[in-house]
Amino acid sequence: MILPERVVLEDQSLRDGLQREQRILSVEEKVEMVRRLLQAGIRRIQVTAFVNPAKVPQMADAEELCARLEPFSSCAEISALVLNKKGLERALRAGCRKVEISVSASETHSVRNTGMRLGEALKELEDMIREAKREGLAVRAGVQCAFGCRMEGMVPPSRVMEIVSRELDLGADEIALADTTGMADPLAIFEISRSVIELAGNSGSPPIFLHLHDTEGKGLANVLAALQAGVTGFDATVGGLGGCPFVPGAAGNIPMEELILMLNQMRIETGVDLGKVMDLGRYLSSLLGKELSSRLYRLNCVEK
Amino acid sequence: MILPERVVLEDQSLRDGLQREQRILSVEEKVEMVRRLLQAGIRRIQVTAFVNPAKVPQMADAEELCARLEPFSSCAEISALVLNKKGLERALRAGCRKVEISVSASETHSVRNTGMRLGEALKELEDMIREAKREGLAVRAGVQCAFGCRMEGMVPPSRVMEIVSRELDLGADEIALADTTGMADPLAIFEISRSVIELAGNSGSPPIFLHLHDTEGKGLANVLAALQAGVTGFDATVGGLGGCPFVPGAAGNIPMEELILMLNQMRIETGVDLGKVMDLGRYLSSLLGKELSSRLYRLNCVEK
Repeated sequence: MILPERVVLEDQSLRDGLQREQRILSVEEKVEMVRRLLQAGIRRIQVTAFVNPAKVPQMADAEELCARLEPFSSCAEISALVLNKKGLERALRAGCRKVEISVSASETHSVRNTGMRLGEALKELEDMIREAKREGLAVRAGVQCAFGCRMEGMVPPSRVMEIVSRELDLGADEIALADTTGMADPLAIFEISRSVIELAGNSGSPPIFLHLHDTEGKGLANVLAALQAGVTGFDATVGGLGGCPFVPGAAGNIPMEELILMLNQMRIETGVDLGKVMDLGRYLSSLLGKELSSRLYRLNCVEK
Repeated sequence: MILPERVVLEDQSLRDGLQREQRILSVEEKVEMVRRLLQAGIRRIQVTAFVNPAKVPQMADAEELCARLEPFSSCAEISALVLNKKGLERALRAGCRKVEISVSASETHSVRNTGMRLGEALKELEDMIREAKREGLAVRAGVQCAFGCRMEGMVPPSRVMEIVSRELDLGADEIALADTTGMADPLAIFEISRSVIELAGNSGSPPIFLHLHDTEGKGLANVLAALQAGVTGFDATVGGLGGCPFVPGAAGNIPMEELILMLNQMRIETGVDLGKVMDLGRYLSSLLGKELSSRLYRLNCVEK
């Protein structure tokens, strides 16, 4: 079994993790989360999204948060998600240094989420990446629903390749393939990841990240398949935060602590301190006033 | 990624799943569970354990249950777990046709669970397998803690090989390697499984089963590693039943429905109907008066 020697982890607790939570954290609490993530050894953090504050009140403080986090940019890659040109303008005015800009590989998902068919959405993406690069930002270019969506099922891998190819041509600094609805299986992950790595030139630059959800319990199996395909970057959230609040106990993103434990046991370096991430789970749980869904969190942190 | 074309699943909901549940099912309810498992296409079911009824009241009806299930033996492999000679005598008198007999690869675990050091426990195992075979029973020979235990950590793989080698010499009909405490990682699973398959002669006969727990979230990642090592038999429980009742939401065995979904998606045949297993989860949940821990069960079956 051929595995990489080390991988890079990106925390998305504050963005994907919080965006459906009822309890809205204060800027102060979010800054404290970032401090603790850095202390645990995490060097990439997606902290917010520049989206409609009426629709996503959890991210309404995006400008203030980015301003407060500016000093941390010297020791970590702090990024924000933007979904359209307006979001990008806000991120630029807020002084962000790195943005994630993405498009969905599912036509149905794209139309429902953005009102744009794939062709239009790709054109918008190109304009946004060009502008971000012109302004000197680092760009994480994403593909949502890269492994299918609940409405269309599997999307053709050729469509994913076409999107990634355009993103690379536009000078994306990294690629993020997202299993947005948590339906990917290890075989699809392996095959698509390998093709994307080949397309990117096998050089590890620009790096390929996977953004996985544990909705159906396949999260870490998909990580294992991706590692074998040569993927060396993964997003995760503390405690597996990010599940739908309307399904009790439903899984969200892959849990950072479970990911680190598995990698540690397989002797793959992450540079992250598992004990400190477990502590962070307790802290986040106290902020949100609820238990987190990660199995490892529950094993260690829930009152027996 | 080299994967088998089909795998065999063994249900352990009634044994490992129920043995720590507060609600004790009636014989009638257990028989109905077996009927429904058979209707779903499952052809191997471990239904009970011949253990001390004062300590494990959930299994106190072992004799009656085995008598009631005798008619099903023509269309399925129905087995019972025995832990010592007394249990084996009871299983023989009850007319069982297949028993699981096992020993722990962890000295500490063996002493705590049975009062016997490894040498003694192995001698006892040999006597039991010989007697079971003499009486015409099929024998599933197991290795508990094959991937380590919480007290000793990793156990030497050579010790696992030594135990399996003896079990094969004694004519075991199949081998079951158990990750009793759910601490195995994919690399250990891959390496030990591959060695055991080589030892057994690569012929698929006797078959090698893995018995995995999802305690730390690595259950399906471990399945993926085992499939790549050539393992084609897996134990599971409906809804992931089997967690410790003192840890809210703690994971138990790997969930049958998540396992089937992943295998279906990877185009590996199981002969089991996923929809019927999902229905079984709802039924089991109603019997036990609680929600099950499987992520897929929660996604589909928990009231939104």
